[in-house]
Amino acid sequence: MENNSTYISINNEILLKTQGALGINDLSIQRGYGIFDFLKVIDNRPIFLDDHLNRFYRSAEEMNLSMDMDRSALKLAIHELMQKNNLPNSAIKIILTGGYADDGFTLHKPNLIITQDAFTMEDRTNLKGMKLVTYNHQRQLPTVKTIDYLQAIRLRPFIAENNADEVLYHNNNQIGECPRANFFIVTDKEIITPKDNILSGIIRSKVLKLSIENYSIIERYISLSELEQAKEAFITSSTKNAYPVIAINGNQIGNGQPGSITAQINEKLYELMMDKSVIAN
Amino acid sequence: MENNSTYISINNEILLKTQGALGINDLSIQRGYGIFDFLKVIDNRPIFLDDHLNRFYRSAEEMNLSMDMDRSALKLAIHELMQKNNLPNSAIKIILTGGYADDGFTLHKPNLIITQDAFTMEDRTNLKGMKLVTYNHQRQLPTVKTIDYLQAIRLRPFIAENNADEVLYHNNNQIGECPRANFFIVTDKEIITPKDNILSGIIRSKVLKLSIENYSIIERYISLSELEQAKEAFITSSTKNAYPVIAINGNQIGNGQPGSITAQINEKLYELMMDKSVIAN
Repeated sequence: MENNSTYISINNEILLKTQGALGINDLSIQRGYGIFDFLKVIDNRPIFLDDHLNRFYRSAEEMNLSMDMDRSALKLAIHELMQKNNLPNSAIKIILTGGYADDGFTLHKPNLIITQDAFTMEDRTNLKGMKLVTYNHQRQLPTVKTIDYLQAIRLRPFIAENNADEVLYHNNNQIGECPRANFFIVTDKEIITPKDNILSGIIRSKVLKLSIENYSIIERYISLSELEQAKEAFITSSTKNAYPVIAINGNQIGNGQPGSITAQINEKLYELMMDKSVIAN
Repeated sequence: MENNSTYISINNEILLKTQGALGINDLSIQRGYGIFDFLKVIDNRPIFLDDHLNRFYRSAEEMNLSMDMDRSALKLAIHELMQKNNLPNSAIKIILTGGYADDGFTLHKPNLIITQDAFTMEDRTNLKGMKLVTYNHQRQLPTVKTIDYLQAIRLRPFIAENNADEVLYHNNNQIGECPRANFFIVTDKEIITPKDNILSGIIRSKVLKLSIENYSIIERYISLSELEQAKEAFITSSTKNAYPVIAINGNQIGNGQPGSITAQINEKLYELMMDKSVIAN
């Protein structure tokens, strides 16, 4: 829901969100060219900020976008926006576009947009679980967090027709990721997430470092047919944390209910996010 | 070059180009979501307008963008902008974005942008030819003219390092297209262009209908290694018409000069564009 008194920042200038605009010669509009990152804020603490900024600067570099603000200046801009908005529980999006191009093609100076919107995490003890439908697609530039969501949005009717909540990409039967989340399965002894050709999600990286009794947490190839043997499945993202998947392509996962290992992981992620000593930035 | 007194049209409202802007919640900025088409105007005649509009409406439909202007209304909007600008030789770009989305993801009402900029064709009797460098990449949604030029722009430094003017995509050795042009080779008896997984260019379709004495003009797979045997090569696009390619990956094509078949095709395209009876819209 839009809040008309929310502020945003464009090129380090704070203005009302309703006044935030880019000229039509910006390369995001002309050529879909831009990168971004997205993180949540809990009790005024931007969660895993340094991880997100690491990825943001890496994405910018991969796309030849020259950020003229260094990390401390960017942090300051984020904190100033947070002070102005006073939204203790929220989500922050940082977009860096290709910038204005008179010829509609050549990169010059990027435009930096920072937005903040109210956001509250779902009650992690009462998640109903989501249904996925698979689709053969490999994201171009998978390791870069570009603004390219052409397939993700184009496929919304396909997802609805298949009675699903989100799509899970596979590349010729090799499982990849969801458009806005990473994917995990749980077997008897392992918690497994695809290894390559995916975006390296921040929550995914945190899960890989957890300790779950009696389970190894590993990265490796997952085939489409392996999904049938999964005891549990879940996705990870900054908004969803670890969120249970209860069906894929109409086939129930496990007993069709959110799984206990997923709940355990979610609990540990929550502890991590609440640990002020770990995430101080 | 930017002309500050040029007008544009946004959602059928004419305004100065310098005032043309979209709110930052437009899905082109948030998610790189949009389609477009592009055509040239010669002596105030929009060239192959119906072909371009056919493709524009097809692209919109493929991306679930609901154009609320029918073809005659869109033509009227284009003609009104042309009258306002009075640029007899120019290029027109029609962009349809995903529109404003409060949630940054869901399609509602697209935004329609029409721009016009002065443009004059190069002297077709004095083309110097261009150099290409190949790169393994398959465009997603190849038959749709989306605004996705992430690879095209990202690869500019790679193109420069390889002493080339543009990139030619191949998909695991199968030749595709350039980011903004189709590709042809000329052999002893054939003029050949890739068949599948490419954008169906308007100029490409016109070339396929030409008659060139002693040559068949065909669509079929072209492998990377076949490029070495080409007598000539050229690209086609609305700005370049048929433009000679004189080297690929540092290897000279034919004798390294613009070829005579390419020149012949270019001449026939020119005649077609100048034939007022054919292109009246």
